[in-house]
Amino acid sequence: MGDIGEFGLIDRVVRRTAAPNDRVLLGPGDDCAVISAPDGRVVVTTDVLVEGRHFRRDWGSGEDTGRRAAAANLADIVAMGAVPTGIVVGLACPPELEIAWVEAFAGGLRDECALVGVSVVGGDISRSDTIFVSVTAFGDLEGRAPVLRSGAGAGEAVALCGRTGYAAAGLAVLSRGFRAGKAFIDAYRRPDPPYAEGKAAALAGATSMCDVSDGLIQDLGHIAAASGVRIDLQRAAFDVPPRMVEIGSALGQDPLGWVLGGGDDHALVATFRSANDVPERWQIIGTTLPVEPAPSSTPDSVDSAGSADRDGAAAVTIDGKLPTMAGWNHF
Amino acid sequence: MGDIGEFGLIDRVVRRTAAPNDRVLLGPGDDCAVISAPDGRVVVTTDVLVEGRHFRRDWGSGEDTGRRAAAANLADIVAMGAVPTGIVVGLACPPELEIAWVEAFAGGLRDECALVGVSVVGGDISRSDTIFVSVTAFGDLEGRAPVLRSGAGAGEAVALCGRTGYAAAGLAVLSRGFRAGKAFIDAYRRPDPPYAEGKAAALAGATSMCDVSDGLIQDLGHIAAASGVRIDLQRAAFDVPPRMVEIGSALGQDPLGWVLGGGDDHALVATFRSANDVPERWQIIGTTLPVEPAPSSTPDSVDSAGSADRDGAAAVTIDGKLPTMAGWNHF
Repeated sequence: MGDIGEFGLIDRVVRRTAAPNDRVLLGPGDDCAVISAPDGRVVVTTDVLVEGRHFRRDWGSGEDTGRRAAAANLADIVAMGAVPTGIVVGLACPPELEIAWVEAFAGGLRDECALVGVSVVGGDISRSDTIFVSVTAFGDLEGRAPVLRSGAGAGEAVALCGRTGYAAAGLAVLSRGFRAGKAFIDAYRRPDPPYAEGKAAALAGATSMCDVSDGLIQDLGHIAAASGVRIDLQRAAFDVPPRMVEIGSALGQDPLGWVLGGGDDHALVATFRSANDVPERWQIIGTTLPVEPAPSSTPDSVDSAGSADRDGAAAVTIDGKLPTMAGWNHF
Repeated sequence: MGDIGEFGLIDRVVRRTAAPNDRVLLGPGDDCAVISAPDGRVVVTTDVLVEGRHFRRDWGSGEDTGRRAAAANLADIVAMGAVPTGIVVGLACPPELEIAWVEAFAGGLRDECALVGVSVVGGDISRSDTIFVSVTAFGDLEGRAPVLRSGAGAGEAVALCGRTGYAAAGLAVLSRGFRAGKAFIDAYRRPDPPYAEGKAAALAGATSMCDVSDGLIQDLGHIAAASGVRIDLQRAAFDVPPRMVEIGSALGQDPLGWVLGGGDDHALVATFRSANDVPERWQIIGTTLPVEPAPSSTPDSVDSAGSADRDGAAAVTIDGKLPTMAGWNHF
């Protein structure tokens, strides 16, 4: 890569990602890009991905990495009830990295963005020993209030849209060098967030929403803590696919742990005042409850209101019992 | 750092950076932040900084690194003639990094943002072997057209606002372990972009503008290439400060190379149709010229129109002659 220089590389990436659309008022090539924000507000989110931690080049292609980086951020945008309007990307990589990888990465960003009608509007490239990726995504609320994590009340329906556990099962297979479970490996490599359903949930009156990036229990814990409610999930609502059960047996792991604790599929989870409000593609998986009285199984050390418990897992129960697995903590 | 966990670290950073202002409609803590975009458009830019390449912990504090990361992006926003509205930050760092460094870094981001009345509205933290920082900044055009690199015509005044060469001199001093030049070291550690002057230039009718991040010659080369003009600078317009001359002598380096080729001070450079349009705090440093006829000193291999010459240095002359130093190329 060193022989074409930073500007040469930027040229190649821009050629791969340029996809003009009516959101982009000024694309790459100047000090800044300019995108439309018709609502008068802009929704923003950012994520960093580090080689060896969030992706490995032997576990997925450059294109996969681009898709995953874009998907993680676009899912956050739609989880606010917003529609995506564009992304910018930062890339730091070793000079000896093959240009083909960078081009494939750029193509993955472009193709994932195309699923929601947006494009890469700008970026920065630098040199480093390992590959770092940062993506910042933007969205427009179209006049709606953002759907926060803090809006759930007691006695509401908790509903899920999209798959969970697939990416975690795929990661487990890849980590063990296991030669099976292609569907799960594919799910790890290319998440399939239900992009259109964030807006659908907002229009249906979702009172709270987030995307499942750290694991369902942990992310629902964030909603519980922010909203001041408990959440009780129904075990019967979770069908573990037979193939996932087989893979779990072969690896000696509990597949329900993937479904309830695995991240990276970027499903959406939300609360609705009534079961009747839940949109068609969503599945009811539980209910919200008042925080008082605390469940008898809650250990003394856990704040049952959840306010001091940032990962909030203890505020979520399954059929009334505390789950035994925790979500993925980056540290 | 590993013992407080990702969410604990995010809490600490948020406490350091939270500075509510009327731009922030929703701050950190949800899937996304929401900032105001009253103009109906949002200006965005992103930069990555890598430890060992863009900063060293022994060359500046965590606070300095935060200030430099924010300044590099805020300068890009004002170079469009926009006013900053907020930033988001990505940070990847080793678990053994001292929390105090991260807190100082967050404080530096906060304090640099405060200079333009904005704050950190969101971010992401992860683990990596080296420190990686990404900053994405946002701005509002207040109804004005963005000032692009491509708007300069022939026969216009080229003007500069802010210092150049200071950060490069400071970096040279630090690189050599030299015990002098405190003013330049300070300039390297904490750039002082003329934030208010981007809007001032836009209001005064600047036809093109950019910030000086790669070096004056190289950045003016971008304007020349994008606008299809040549730029001739007047050597007499550049006073090299006596102290910089002394430091250059001691290090055996040409201080004019720092002034014309050094980046990281984030001065602003712009073109104006007439010398009368140039705002008070700006200094005229040259003029734009038509690309035809090509200057006789232009080598055959250089595209005199600049369109195929992305770093564009050959499109900039000093007293009619091609400069001998090139700007900083990341690869």
